[in-house]
Amino acid sequence: MNALLNETHDAAQQSWVTSANDGISDFPIQNLPIAIFRRASSAEKFRGGVAIGEQILDIPAAQICGIFSDLALAAATAASGESLNALMTLSTAHWSAFRLALSRALRAGSGHEAKLAACLVPQSEAQFSLPARIGDYTDFYTSLHHATNVGKLFRPDNPLLPNYKWVPIGYHGRASSIRVSGQILPRPIGQTMPPNATVPNFGPSKRMDYEVELGLFIGGGNALGASIPIAEAEQHLFGVCLLNDWSARDIQGWEYQPLGPFLSKSFATTISPWIVMTEALAPFRAAFTRDGEDPAPLPYLDSPTNQAHGAFNIKITAAIETATMRAANLSAAPLSTTTYARAAYWTPAQLIAHHTVNGCNLQPGDLLGTGTLSGPSLAESGALIEITGGGKNPITLPNGETRTFLEDGDAVSFSATCEKAGAVRIGFGRCWGRVAAHDSRVI
Amino acid sequence: MNALLNETHDAAQQSWVTSANDGISDFPIQNLPIAIFRRASSAEKFRGGVAIGEQILDIPAAQICGIFSDLALAAATAASGESLNALMTLSTAHWSAFRLALSRALRAGSGHEAKLAACLVPQSEAQFSLPARIGDYTDFYTSLHHATNVGKLFRPDNPLLPNYKWVPIGYHGRASSIRVSGQILPRPIGQTMPPNATVPNFGPSKRMDYEVELGLFIGGGNALGASIPIAEAEQHLFGVCLLNDWSARDIQGWEYQPLGPFLSKSFATTISPWIVMTEALAPFRAAFTRDGEDPAPLPYLDSPTNQAHGAFNIKITAAIETATMRAANLSAAPLSTTTYARAAYWTPAQLIAHHTVNGCNLQPGDLLGTGTLSGPSLAESGALIEITGGGKNPITLPNGETRTFLEDGDAVSFSATCEKAGAVRIGFGRCWGRVAAHDSRVI
Repeated sequence: MNALLNETHDAAQQSWVTSANDGISDFPIQNLPIAIFRRASSAEKFRGGVAIGEQILDIPAAQICGIFSDLALAAATAASGESLNALMTLSTAHWSAFRLALSRALRAGSGHEAKLAACLVPQSEAQFSLPARIGDYTDFYTSLHHATNVGKLFRPDNPLLPNYKWVPIGYHGRASSIRVSGQILPRPIGQTMPPNATVPNFGPSKRMDYEVELGLFIGGGNALGASIPIAEAEQHLFGVCLLNDWSARDIQGWEYQPLGPFLSKSFATTISPWIVMTEALAPFRAAFTRDGEDPAPLPYLDSPTNQAHGAFNIKITAAIETATMRAANLSAAPLSTTTYARAAYWTPAQLIAHHTVNGCNLQPGDLLGTGTLSGPSLAESGALIEITGGGKNPITLPNGETRTFLEDGDAVSFSATCEKAGAVRIGFGRCWGRVAAHDSRVI
Repeated sequence: MNALLNETHDAAQQSWVTSANDGISDFPIQNLPIAIFRRASSAEKFRGGVAIGEQILDIPAAQICGIFSDLALAAATAASGESLNALMTLSTAHWSAFRLALSRALRAGSGHEAKLAACLVPQSEAQFSLPARIGDYTDFYTSLHHATNVGKLFRPDNPLLPNYKWVPIGYHGRASSIRVSGQILPRPIGQTMPPNATVPNFGPSKRMDYEVELGLFIGGGNALGASIPIAEAEQHLFGVCLLNDWSARDIQGWEYQPLGPFLSKSFATTISPWIVMTEALAPFRAAFTRDGEDPAPLPYLDSPTNQAHGAFNIKITAAIETATMRAANLSAAPLSTTTYARAAYWTPAQLIAHHTVNGCNLQPGDLLGTGTLSGPSLAESGALIEITGGGKNPITLPNGETRTFLEDGDAVSFSATCEKAGAVRIGFGRCWGRVAAHDSRVI
């Protein structure tokens, strides 16, 4: 028995919200992810909601119904405002009590159906906002395969740098341009240096790309000057969402040395509205793995717990829908499917321990991106730059269109699931964004 | 006559706060910088205050005295809270009206002395907080001399990268660890790779350094997807402070490729409490200069106004006080003196235009660092790594101590002045921080 499991994971539980029980919903009663929402086109205040089947349980409304007490009540109160930062400031004990109270109230036979039915809002009628005020956003680079694939394109003679297997490489990202799923992003304009040119070009990016990532929301955090030891690091992982780190490769190639990506990324980042809380992922944990030739992590990045189940089996699929496909009402075409535990060289606990080892303070609501989660095979590549070999090998979509990089009107969506024998499949909802023409920009 | 000048710059003006009139104060009536303060060790709320001589004019108190009306009143109201973000959200017209009202109320013979005297708090009795909630912090790299000097140390065969004279190089910095002057920073711990080693070291940094920078606070800002044209960029420059970008060079050298500095910087950044508003700098503007061999800026980075007076003559001095000097009551020893306009290859307007050209949104309270402002000579170098040639040439302090990098107990302070014939000298106050032993960290 996995010691991380409790009654909220019980595969036998079903919900009185019957759309949660169909075996294909992302949101069975074992999941219970949280978002900030309101009814679309309404003047309602944004507030916390928990997904169950095709519905959202309105947290402040459910609180009035009296389903929360003690730690769960404190959590529900903290989840009733316009962001989840207050909830993220609480502890794992609060988050666990909150999930337990939700599980008990929403399960079939709970006796709460009559009063809670009025607290449900259909997801199809909801509008979402960012789940938290993101103080700082850090993007990591945890896939060895991505680092190697992209390294070959940017530095053919030196693809994987010598620090990679020792240092969880990361950089600060732009927080102000993160938006929730549904983002429409004008193609960015900027400087690029064409091969063999001596003067840069200035104009819309010609190599627009997406990057398949997970977003890790920080709960708790540490004081400036303190560090979070790896053994405690997961107590500071509130939950996980999907993240698209849109990238303008031609701008990136010209600007990134020596201080890293800047305008090639800062124009937009899209995350899914739903945060799957860490506890919900307990059945889908995986051992931390290394090849025999890889060095052991330095002690501050190593712990028995991290070795045993520091990784997560989250399978993420990216799909594209072009303007032509949309006009013809064709469904989105898959681009790749990748699995976090297989792609990532570093676990969330290692990222948190590394980020804070120098005394840097993480705060509730901070967001860590995993970096592009490319697996070892081409079919597991999390970005077009890898799939197309730097734009040299176009892909053909089911309707006959071809792509090297994204065209105006192309929408990219990510979805993700966790599946395991004996556990109920859970999902992450959707992270969707569309590239628009550069002249659609606000002037 | 400089068209940017108005009666607040009139060199003949004196204040009824006589300590402002001594010709050596950083804060004559022509300056009027703003901070967030309260009386030290009090339970008072933090609020806006304006420096005049050795005093602070308490803005909410002064507002009650009725010295503000119209736009100035809106500005004073916005400056009465616990951060200046609301003030920064307003316009240049508001900031200018605010300065004018302050200048008229504080000048000798204003008739306001009797009622405003009770609104003064001595700076010696004040405690400061960060002037704004900093949403995002971006650090640039605007000194060609620093880029070349440091480039030689990190990449001997390739010091100045080919993008430098085209792209205002910058990267996202960590906002959560920025503190106001007075910061005591535990020496960070981290990974380093000693020369010829094959396994990294883990321990306290041995190459602690400071970086002389200016901090540029954003006012106004732009919507995501919009850009700020260079001709309008300075309308979004609220004001300027001093900034110390503390750096752990050994951690930096090992971690920075390929995504830029991360833990080598994120443990601490110190800024001065006073923001000198852009209008106060009008007498000290300088032409944007290029060597004959430098390429003309791309059109989005070029404007006649920027050419004519896009730079600022701000002279910054860095000084060190060791624990031994402090114990012996010796004054701090100067390390270098550098001038912004002489050191910087890019102006603030160019940084703002570049940052937003891709549609990235700047928000009121965002902070841009200029990057280390090293001038062309060794005596104008803004970091120990340059002054000591990467630690190879120790400097000898007046009391006989030597330094390559900073030792525990070393305090570094920056001060800055603007001076010009016919104008009254203005200053920036002080940006001070002290390195503490690594085991002083919060655990």
